Amino acid sequence: MVIEELTRNASLKFLASTHLSRLACVQGSQPYIVPIYFSYNNDYLYTFSTVGQKIDWMRANPLVCVQADEVVNSEHWTSVIVYGRFEELPDTPEWRTERSSAHGLLQSKAMWWEPGYVKTILHGKEHPLLPVFYRIHITEITGHRATPDA
Amino acid sequence: MVIEELTRNASLKFLASTHLSRLACVQGSQPYIVPIYFSYNNDYLYTFSTVGQKIDWMRANPLVCVQADEVVNSEHWTSVIVYGRFEELPDTPEWRTERSSAHGLLQSKAMWWEPGYVKTILHGKEHPLLPVFYRIHITEITGHRATPDA
Repeated sequence: MVIEELTRNASLKFLASTHLSRLACVQGSQPYIVPIYFSYNNDYLYTFSTVGQKIDWMRANPLVCVQADEVVNSEHWTSVIVYGRFEELPDTPEWRTERSSAHGLLQSKAMWWEPGYVKTILHGKEHPLLPVFYRIHITEITGHRATPDA
Repeated sequence: MVIEELTRNASLKFLASTHLSRLACVQGSQPYIVPIYFSYNNDYLYTFSTVGQKIDWMRANPLVCVQADEVVNSEHWTSVIVYGRFEELPDTPEWRTERSSAHGLLQSKAMWWEPGYVKTILHGKEHPLLPVFYRIHITEITGHRATPDA
């Protein structure tokens, strides 16, 4: 196979075409990965989460990495890696426009997280959805595409 | 949907049934994620890579996180997260048995990396494959499965 680098524009275009990715954050020297859904807009990835480990870790250390890919098989894939910075979108008047924009973007993708719709059972307890909206500012992006030999 | 925790055994069984995952490593406070193929055996994930950023970073800080999932859709998925420790399998007599075992496991999965088969072009230069064999010792594993409401 041949592996080629994508330009910044091609990498951003790939992000705009996808929604599922993996996010890594760090506490001390220990990384943690979770799958996230996001919506790309203008150098930011918009998403939300319930409060928990990754929100705690990103509040303490905002440096993250996001990786998105499309794997047809081991010789035919696209992978984009983002270095970014966590920015919370708090529920205050100052951030109303950004939150509303994040909410709109996520809603436009017919996301699955409508309040009252999601019910999670962890440790035998039902957890209501208390979303924290946040965005990842893309500080660096690289992309690669592998194609089988002709 | 309902999200349930998997037992340690169910999580390991899921890892044994899959090969594609994402690995995160850390330099300073900055995480980095890359997709990897692996073979699970007895609390270890066996894999290899060409020398590069992730090998450099893991040699300096062996704490990693590996995440594997099977996503049918946003309400129906399984995700397993491993905290682990990078252990290189150097090409020395001392490690011959482990390297041979790693090689055998990877080969048994009809992997794509046969020497001479993979040709990558980066920065306009052809890179030969110089694999570094390594394994991730699983120090902690958690798993979750989401299923739609009945």
